[in-house]
Amino acid sequence: MSTPHYETLPPSDAVTLGERAQRLISSLATLTDEPGRITRHYLSPAHRRATDLVGDWMRAAGLAVSLDALGTVRGRQEARRAGPSSGKRLLIGSHIDTVTDGGAYDGNFGVVAGILAVDELRRRRVSLPFGIEVLAFGDEEGVRFPTTLASSSAVAGAFNPAFLDRRDAAGVSLREALVAFGCDPDAIPDAACDPDEILGYLEVHIEQGPVLEHEKLPLGVVTSIAGQSRFKGIVLGEAGHAGTAPMNLRRDALAAAAEIMGEIERIARAGRDDSLVATVGQLAVTPGAVNVIPARVDFSLDIRAASDAPRLAAIAEIRARAREIGERRHVAFLLEGYHESPTTPCAPQLQAAFAAGIDALGQRVLRLTSGAGHDGHAIHHLTGVGMLFVRCRRGISHNPLEFAEPADMGLAVEALIGAILALARDEDGERS
Amino acid sequence: MSTPHYETLPPSDAVTLGERAQRLISSLATLTDEPGRITRHYLSPAHRRATDLVGDWMRAAGLAVSLDALGTVRGRQEARRAGPSSGKRLLIGSHIDTVTDGGAYDGNFGVVAGILAVDELRRRRVSLPFGIEVLAFGDEEGVRFPTTLASSSAVAGAFNPAFLDRRDAAGVSLREALVAFGCDPDAIPDAACDPDEILGYLEVHIEQGPVLEHEKLPLGVVTSIAGQSRFKGIVLGEAGHAGTAPMNLRRDALAAAAEIMGEIERIARAGRDDSLVATVGQLAVTPGAVNVIPARVDFSLDIRAASDAPRLAAIAEIRARAREIGERRHVAFLLEGYHESPTTPCAPQLQAAFAAGIDALGQRVLRLTSGAGHDGHAIHHLTGVGMLFVRCRRGISHNPLEFAEPADMGLAVEALIGAILALARDEDGERS
Repeated sequence: MSTPHYETLPPSDAVTLGERAQRLISSLATLTDEPGRITRHYLSPAHRRATDLVGDWMRAAGLAVSLDALGTVRGRQEARRAGPSSGKRLLIGSHIDTVTDGGAYDGNFGVVAGILAVDELRRRRVSLPFGIEVLAFGDEEGVRFPTTLASSSAVAGAFNPAFLDRRDAAGVSLREALVAFGCDPDAIPDAACDPDEILGYLEVHIEQGPVLEHEKLPLGVVTSIAGQSRFKGIVLGEAGHAGTAPMNLRRDALAAAAEIMGEIERIARAGRDDSLVATVGQLAVTPGAVNVIPARVDFSLDIRAASDAPRLAAIAEIRARAREIGERRHVAFLLEGYHESPTTPCAPQLQAAFAAGIDALGQRVLRLTSGAGHDGHAIHHLTGVGMLFVRCRRGISHNPLEFAEPADMGLAVEALIGAILALARDEDGERS
Repeated sequence: MSTPHYETLPPSDAVTLGERAQRLISSLATLTDEPGRITRHYLSPAHRRATDLVGDWMRAAGLAVSLDALGTVRGRQEARRAGPSSGKRLLIGSHIDTVTDGGAYDGNFGVVAGILAVDELRRRRVSLPFGIEVLAFGDEEGVRFPTTLASSSAVAGAFNPAFLDRRDAAGVSLREALVAFGCDPDAIPDAACDPDEILGYLEVHIEQGPVLEHEKLPLGVVTSIAGQSRFKGIVLGEAGHAGTAPMNLRRDALAAAAEIMGEIERIARAGRDDSLVATVGQLAVTPGAVNVIPARVDFSLDIRAASDAPRLAAIAEIRARAREIGERRHVAFLLEGYHESPTTPCAPQLQAAFAAGIDALGQRVLRLTSGAGHDGHAIHHLTGVGMLFVRCRRGISHNPLEFAEPADMGLAVEALIGAILALARDEDGERS
């Protein structure tokens, strides 16, 4: 099944793979809708040029390339040898859209890693017992349209048709933007994979957090994509003169909110084993004058954990403690949920495959939760999901300062190759 | 020394005095620069009409009326009988300016109470061994010009000449506004009282706080006008992704600020015996996104107490505790003072005089601190200050909902009369 030019390219080591990854990422980073920044929104001119470039790279790696109805670049190769899974394929993907003024690595490295892994398997003359499809999604960040994971949900057969009528800030609907991009919205059902033909989904991604750097490790295996709950919190007290109201006669909304925030932090810290995190990122005080006791505080609350039960338990505990605080202080407390996404557990077999890939590099295998959302959340509707995290500098992401060491990226491509080989061994084992 | 018509008016009881106070206050409340609201800024047309009306009332009460260089209406009567203090006079005052959309009672009631007390002493055919001067100040609220207590500081001989060049929002200087009002800025030194001619200063004022209502008492004796310190607080942490940064690797500026606010409240509560109060009235979070760990918090801090030492000790303790919290959390903490006013203690003799006036009404004597500032803060440079507080509904002030019961105001006028009589007895006692 192999084509002649396979043998003409020498295999690479991890250092070379890392350098190659950095070059491809730097090329993608030049494709932007805002000169001087990396801004590549879904279905924009820069996204169009990025799909072309990624398609070229996929073709050079020996993949058959197509653009699906949602603008996902898909590069496919069939199984190299016969076996029970030779009619199936392994998905490897990530996204090539960015936030406004974003970084070069978020998403983009996962696509590059998939292409480099396929290319390297060819150089190493590996014949896999299953096909591979590399996917470059376009709507992971959800910046342009009020949609969530539109492109990966189409691959998973879980696309929400109502998305087509949602409009961007300029009033352009998703349907109109797709047509202008050269896509056919009526072909969306064709983008869906048949679950019976899919072995699983692997994604490599920068961590976007500080854990791997803190642990001095280049790679980590993701155990789950954290479920997430978001709330608007309101504390209602009573305004008063900052000079004339004694402390014991106050109903200070901000003092109450401060105590509630202390409890939120305490409860989140106690959930360390469940990767529980809770963040109050927004807070507004009314009336907000130096000499007036606050009458009202509005704040946001974002809670995530490695699994659903501890997250929901933490929310219940926060509600209970805040109610006690409100009653004691004679202030009203409201916590109104407005976003809830369940946890996406990573498939044990795919976690084990990435662990084998890391172990083969002589690295300690650290398992961690992904606090950020990813395309895997949508793909989970189709097949099992496995994710590999790569250390990034200071945990910074969604920012021009985003950076991953080429050496770490090289190890990540090697670990991806190792995971693919582990899955091939699993298939061979199942066959024997 | 008495004039014939004294005997033609019958004495009044407290109920009548309260009703009369309410009528005068209601008349003043019609004089506004904004129809539908009570807004009477310093040297405005409404202030001009109010000085005329107050002057008429003073004349009707037998006082010799003048307008001084800062627009203060001054009504004076000489001692009715000879004695060691017959060359001296007791000052009784408050202010007739208001905040924008303010209440009818703040300041205005103190002026009305002084006039009614003088009138009633005449009806009761009391001959005092000292003179009286009732003062209606115009610049207590400090709303129009960036000045502080300009009119009362001139009476105290402590006027800051730099105030004359300060301008209102329309660009009018205080000097220009005074001339337009009919005042002579060059005569400001003449407004100053000779300390040797002044016995003391009494002021009646609504409490503007909830203590008397909470204690179910109509009146209270002020022990001091609280000193006040104001700060800008800054907490500097590090931004991070709300999903990917574990709790133990965060440097959350808002979580740190919440803990610091808890300490501020604890320290203020512990200073109850010193009437310590501390208020965080403003707070802003940067960057302020639901999914970003706060990098920076800016907040205001206002601290007051009945005397300077406990206020300064509380500030030192807050600094120390916040520094500990900052070190533990690896966030920076800054507390920058931008306003500091020392405590104005009330004169023991004048406190005792008001206490005697309250006691004579069969009421329990409660002593309390004034958390708000008053003209007495400036007059303290000239002479001893005594203040009587009157219960006001729900502690509300600087608001159209401001209200004091006529019955309580009647008792306040009676207590002021009682205080004047107690001071007369003191003078007689010193003479004997």
